[in-house]
Amino acid sequence: MTLTADALTELTDALPGRVLRDPTEMAPFAVDTSREQLAGDPAAVVLAESTDDVSAALAWAHRHGVKVSVRGAGSGLCGGAMAYPGGLVVSLERMNRILHIDVDNRLADVQAGVITSDLDDAAHEHGLFFAPDPASVRISTVGGNIATNAGGLRCVAHGVTSDAVAALKVVLADGRVIRTGGRTRKNVTGYDLTSLFVGSEGTLGVITSATVRLKPVPPGEPVTFHAMFDDIGAAGRAVIDIVSSPYPPEVLELLDTMSVEIIERYQHTGLPIPNAALLVGQTVGHDAPRIAEGIVGICRAAGATDAGFSASDAMIEARRLANPALNAQGLRVSCDVGVPVSELATIFAGMDEIAQRHGRRIASVAHAGDGNLHSTVEAGETPDEYRAAEAVIDDITRLALSLGGTITGEHGIGSTKHHELSWQLDENTRAAQLAIKAALDPTGILTPDRAV
Amino acid sequence: MTLTADALTELTDALPGRVLRDPTEMAPFAVDTSREQLAGDPAAVVLAESTDDVSAALAWAHRHGVKVSVRGAGSGLCGGAMAYPGGLVVSLERMNRILHIDVDNRLADVQAGVITSDLDDAAHEHGLFFAPDPASVRISTVGGNIATNAGGLRCVAHGVTSDAVAALKVVLADGRVIRTGGRTRKNVTGYDLTSLFVGSEGTLGVITSATVRLKPVPPGEPVTFHAMFDDIGAAGRAVIDIVSSPYPPEVLELLDTMSVEIIERYQHTGLPIPNAALLVGQTVGHDAPRIAEGIVGICRAAGATDAGFSASDAMIEARRLANPALNAQGLRVSCDVGVPVSELATIFAGMDEIAQRHGRRIASVAHAGDGNLHSTVEAGETPDEYRAAEAVIDDITRLALSLGGTITGEHGIGSTKHHELSWQLDENTRAAQLAIKAALDPTGILTPDRAV
Repeated sequence: MTLTADALTELTDALPGRVLRDPTEMAPFAVDTSREQLAGDPAAVVLAESTDDVSAALAWAHRHGVKVSVRGAGSGLCGGAMAYPGGLVVSLERMNRILHIDVDNRLADVQAGVITSDLDDAAHEHGLFFAPDPASVRISTVGGNIATNAGGLRCVAHGVTSDAVAALKVVLADGRVIRTGGRTRKNVTGYDLTSLFVGSEGTLGVITSATVRLKPVPPGEPVTFHAMFDDIGAAGRAVIDIVSSPYPPEVLELLDTMSVEIIERYQHTGLPIPNAALLVGQTVGHDAPRIAEGIVGICRAAGATDAGFSASDAMIEARRLANPALNAQGLRVSCDVGVPVSELATIFAGMDEIAQRHGRRIASVAHAGDGNLHSTVEAGETPDEYRAAEAVIDDITRLALSLGGTITGEHGIGSTKHHELSWQLDENTRAAQLAIKAALDPTGILTPDRAV
Repeated sequence: MTLTADALTELTDALPGRVLRDPTEMAPFAVDTSREQLAGDPAAVVLAESTDDVSAALAWAHRHGVKVSVRGAGSGLCGGAMAYPGGLVVSLERMNRILHIDVDNRLADVQAGVITSDLDDAAHEHGLFFAPDPASVRISTVGGNIATNAGGLRCVAHGVTSDAVAALKVVLADGRVIRTGGRTRKNVTGYDLTSLFVGSEGTLGVITSATVRLKPVPPGEPVTFHAMFDDIGAAGRAVIDIVSSPYPPEVLELLDTMSVEIIERYQHTGLPIPNAALLVGQTVGHDAPRIAEGIVGICRAAGATDAGFSASDAMIEARRLANPALNAQGLRVSCDVGVPVSELATIFAGMDEIAQRHGRRIASVAHAGDGNLHSTVEAGETPDEYRAAEAVIDDITRLALSLGGTITGEHGIGSTKHHELSWQLDENTRAAQLAIKAALDPTGILTPDRAV
C-alpha cells in the first residue's frame, strides 16, 4: 500500500476542496474516543459533501487497494473509526442536512452526518421524536448511530437504532450505490439489507443517508420513579416483574451502591444511597402516573425498602452523570456486556466476587430493562495498570457469556473487542459473517480487521 | 441433475424412515397454496426430525447438486415452497416441538415446524402471547412465518415477524450449522444475520429452530371501534391522524364498499355498508376504552359519517371473513402491495380507475395502519381470464410503486412475484442481494430462482 504522488493527485483532482493531506489538519479525523493508539498517519482525509463524493473516494480506494476508515463525529468507544496508517479516512461530518421530515408517515430523510439530537429537535417541531438516545446523542451522528446500532436509555420502550431505520443509501466498497428498505411499514421484497448494514461498523459499505422512523411525542409530563434495595436479588426480581407486566417504563436503570456513591461524590445530587442497588426510571404518556404507581407496587412486592415517584426528573439527570463521575474518580475502563434480564442479579453478584479477586473497585450501571451493563473498573494511567483493569473486564465478559449474554450490547466491536469475537461466535457462524463481508467487499478495503 | 440410484440410496440410508420416494406419498409435499403448477415430481422428500437430519439432507444435496425446496405447512401463497422437478423437498413438519418457554425473559425456543397458534396458546398459559398473527396462524408454522417475515392484523401495534425473532439455528447449503442472534434484548456482536435470514424464503439456509420474543397479555377486555366514510380521502386522513396520535390501536383495518358488500353477501354479519370505506379496529389494555374514544374522535374530525365503539368483536370477526368471501364470489387473484400510509387514499382512488379501465371488479382490504393492501380481482377459471386478472394486479402494483410503495408487504416474492423484483429494486441493489446469496450458497441449490 505505497501510494504514488500520481494516485494522490488523482484523488485531490476528483474531490477539489474536500481532501486533507496535511498531518496536522488530518489529526482530528484520525482518532476516535477509544483508548486505541494511532499506528501512523492516514494518507488522506475526504470531507465528503455528497454520496457522489463518497462514491468517488471509495472507487479510488478500491482501485489503489487503500484501507478505508469511516467516521461521523468520531465519538465511538471501540476504535471502529481509527485511521489506518497510509489509509483513507472518509468523514461524513459535512453531510449534515436534514433533508425532509415526512410528518404523515412519521419518517425523516437525513444525511449520515446529522447530529442525532438535531434530528430529534427538528422532529419535535412536528410533535414527533427520534427514539434512539445514546448518551452521546448531542455529539454523535445519525450515521454513526446506525453503523453501530447504538442503544441508550429509552431502548426498553422503543428498541435499538435498528428498530428506527426504514431505508438506507449505501456506497459499496467499489463505489457503486445501493438503496435498501423503503418508506412503507412492511416490505418483504428481497433480503433485509437495511438490518444487515445497521451495526456493520463500516465494514460492508458507507451509509450516506437514511430514512428513519419517528414517533409521536407522548402527551403529558413524564413521571420519575425510584426504588431502593438491600439485596441485589430483590432488585433483579423487580426488573423481571416490571418488564413482564402491563406497566411499560420508558427508562429503567439499575445502579449499584458504588455508582451512586461516586455520582454523589462528584456532584451532590441528592440521590439516595442504597445498601445494594437503586432502580430509577421514567414513565410517559396519558397514563404515566398510573404506570409509575404500578411499577412502584411491583418494586415493593419484590422487597424494595423505599420506593416512590415524583414529577421531578432530578434522579434521571443524576443517573446521566455516571460516566463523567466514574472517569473523574479513576474508574476508566468499562465494558458493555448484556445478559438475559433474568440473569441481572447473578451478574451483579458475580461482579462483587470479581472485584474482590482482583482487588479493584468495580461500579456498575445497567440499562436494566435490556439487561445491558456498563461496569467500570478502577485503573491508573500506566500501561500495566490498564492491562490489569482489562483483565477484570475480561472476567466480567466471560461471566456474561456464561449466563447466555453478549460481549457488547450497544457500543460495538470495533478493534477493542475484536479478539473477543470467538468467545461468543462459533467457527461456522464467524465464517458465514466473513463470507458476507467478502461478498460485498471482495478486496477487503473497508474497515478491515474490525467488527467481524 | 440426473440422480443415480446409488445417490438416492445414500440419502435413504442416511435418514432411515425419514425419506419419501413414492410419487403419491410425495405429492402433498410438492405444492403450496399458490396457483403455481408443479413442473415435475421431486426426487425425494425428507421429513426432518432434527437439525442433524436437515444437515445430512443438505450436505447430500450439496454433494450431488440437487435443487432444494423447503416447507413448513406449505401455506405460502407465492410458490416459494413448490418442489423442483427431480429436486429434494425438506419438510420441517415433524419438527413441531415447543422446547422451552422462558417466562422471565419472555422468550420461547421452538422448532421450525410448530404451528404458530400452538405457540401463542402455550405462551398464553404464562400470561404471554406471540404477536405475529398472519391470517394463516392456525395452519402455518413459526419457521414458515419467519422465512417469509409474515405480517398480519396486529402489525400496526407490534411490528412484523422480524420484530419477534431473537435468535435462529440455521443449516447452510453445505450442511454446516450456524446460530444467529442471542437471548439478550441488545446484541451488536457481528452482523445481524437473524434479520438477514428472516424473510429470505429458504434461499440462504434452512431455519430449524428459533428463539422468539413474547409479550405480556394486555389486561382487561379489547374494545372494537368502527367509522364509516363517504369519501376515501377522509378515511385516509383518519388513518394518518390515528397512527400519528397518542392513541395506538392494536388493529386498524380499512375495507372498501365492495369488500363489505361481498362479506355481507357471503354471511350476514351485520357489518354496516359504507358509501366509500369502513374503518374497523381494536384497542387493548387498561386504557382500551379511552384509546378507542380518542380514535373515534379523530375519525369524526376527519369526516366520518358514523363512528363508535363497543365491547363486541363481531366486526373484527366479520373482517376476517374477507378472504373466503372474496374467493367464493369469484374474486380470486390478489396482491399484497404496500404504500406509505399517506398514500392510502390515493391508491384506493386509483383502484377505481383501474377497475373501470379493465372492466373488472376489484375489492380492497387494507391493514391500514401499515399501508398494506390486499386488492382482489375478479377472475374466471380459464388461463385467459387468469392472465387478464394478473394484468389488473400488475397495474395496481405499478401504482403502488409510483407512490413510493412495495410489491409485497407480507406474503413474499416466491416465484409468482419474481419477475416484479426489477420493478422495485435497481440493478446494483439486486446485485448486492445476489452476491450475498452466492456467498452463503455458492452452488445455488437452495430455492433457486425465487425470492431474490
